Amino acid sequence: MESGERLPPEVAEQTEVPRAATTGTLFGVGMGPGEPDYLTMRAMRVLERAPVLVHFCKKGRRGNARTIADAVLAAEPGREYPLVYPYTTELHPEHPDYVAALAAFYDDASARLADHLGAGRDVAILSEGDPFFYGSFMHLWRRLKDRFPVEVVPGVTGMSGCWTRAGTPITWGDDVLTVLPATLPHAALVERLRATDAAVLMKLGRHLPKVRAALAEAGVLERAVYVERGTMAGERVIALKDKPDDVAPYFSMVLLPGEGRRP
Amino acid sequence: MESGERLPPEVAEQTEVPRAATTGTLFGVGMGPGEPDYLTMRAMRVLERAPVLVHFCKKGRRGNARTIADAVLAAEPGREYPLVYPYTTELHPEHPDYVAALAAFYDDASARLADHLGAGRDVAILSEGDPFFYGSFMHLWRRLKDRFPVEVVPGVTGMSGCWTRAGTPITWGDDVLTVLPATLPHAALVERLRATDAAVLMKLGRHLPKVRAALAEAGVLERAVYVERGTMAGERVIALKDKPDDVAPYFSMVLLPGEGRRP
Ligand SMILES: C[S@@+](CC[C@H](N)C(=O)[O-])C[C@H]1O[C@@H](n2cnc3c(N)ncnc32)[C@H](O)[C@@H]1O
Ligand SMILES: C[S@@+](CC[C@H](N)C(=O)[O-])C[C@H]1O[C@@H](n2cnc3c(N)ncnc32)[C@H](O)[C@@H]1O
Repeated sequence: MESGERLPPEVAEQTEVPRAATTGTLFGVGMGPGEPDYLTMRAMRVLERAPVLVHFCKKGRRGNARTIADAVLAAEPGREYPLVYPYTTELHPEHPDYVAALAAFYDDASARLADHLGAGRDVAILSEGDPFFYGSFMHLWRRLKDRFPVEVVPGVTGMSGCWTRAGTPITWGDDVLTVLPATLPHAALVERLRATDAAVLMKLGRHLPKVRAALAEAGVLERAVYVERGTMAGERVIALKDKPDDVAPYFSMVLLPGEGRRP
Repeated sequence: MESGERLPPEVAEQTEVPRAATTGTLFGVGMGPGEPDYLTMRAMRVLERAPVLVHFCKKGRRGNARTIADAVLAAEPGREYPLVYPYTTELHPEHPDYVAALAAFYDDASARLADHLGAGRDVAILSEGDPFFYGSFMHLWRRLKDRFPVEVVPGVTGMSGCWTRAGTPITWGDDVLTVLPATLPHAALVERLRATDAAVLMKLGRHLPKVRAALAEAGVLERAVYVERGTMAGERVIALKDKPDDVAPYFSMVLLPGEGRRP
């Protein structure tokens, strides 16, 4: 059992959970923004040792978290476990059919992981960025946390990777930072952009035209930076006002850097 | 020169800056939240190699970022460079005397680092958490970035470390997350807490009574979690409503976890 290893005693104590000698630990491993060198020492150790490695992916594609691991892990079919998201033809995330399909997917995946954990095998779920920040890991964690010991390994978030590569601090002094899913309605985006000093707009994809319009209406489009695949292969950084089209992949975000106190 | 090493070519290209053969690189090294195992691989490599290591501290104290490095770096007086903040007896951060003293401190520190950089020595500035997220590093970066090559190494933020140890995801689904400096006035805190799904209140210290009152007024005190020295020695996690006093050190924050979509 490696849970709590090298952590200060009061932490180890806190994460300790009574369990049978045969029970495995569920690890949520933050894989960072993309660049493998931004993996933490702890993430490396868990990836090296866990007998079962799990990643999410879409049908017929490699998962992005798994791609980050390419630099440090050989492909080991017997040890790896892709969880393939259910196919959804453009259903809205709040559509009952979509919610039901996702719930069934997470239930089923959790049951399969519970078999490994119950048999004493540690399971590591590879999570982009930080696992507890809008992570799919959380849906499995929620279903398994009361039955098995858990260790979450925090990671460098996608947004940290993006503002690093944009070459701009995100917050100064007493700046307020608002993290906004680009999925919000136009009016909500405008209102929240008006009320903040700095912002990060996540889950961009097809919402970019709406985000651009909201930034313009809030009077801050000039300052916005578009970052695509920050720290990954194919990275692109450009002032949003200079981006000629409104095409954005899933792994993209818009940053609005703060302008607070600078002695 | 190690800037850009192991990064994808398009990134290396972007961070490359024309320079004399003798010029050193300024590194801002994200040290993570406290636990040394949460250092990234890249941070480890820069710490091992940089001939000049700089950390901020208060007079007569060790800097916190330097303490994180204890587990991985022996004390090397010839290589290390503490930058001691000017003594300030409780002046408000916006008081002109305080701003002037800080500006002079950053100017002077930058001049000293410029000597090293100009002489071809890489300089690594140890930064708690992520360097571009409310970091003191940014004040030196601002003064030096146009004269020397720079590499920022992103880190796991203090807030990621804290929500990891609190054992709670911070954002689900389309949750909006607001990061608030606890230095804001009471009314501003209430307003912003009312308008968000999830929040992180940073720079707590003596502002805890005000923060507690603002959370109560916004009707969310029940959900708030207090984290002191997250992932460091002396860590403490407690529901804020159960914390019997209003004493909080500088390294503490309050988390308000979101409650968004959970299929
Ligand atoms: C479901 S969220 C997962 C966030 C992740 N857990 C984290 O800590 O960054 C996915 C969104 O994160 C953003 N994202 C994450 N990594 C990114 C990167 N390297 N470059 C650009 N956007 C990224 C994109 O906006 C994407 O739509
Ligand atoms: C000037 S900000 C620096 C933030 C840092 N650059 C980061 O990325 O987390 C300092 C504040 O961060 C918060 N903080 C950082 N690390 C922390 C930790 N390990 N535990 C609790 N609070 C922390 C505290 O609220 C503190 O007042």
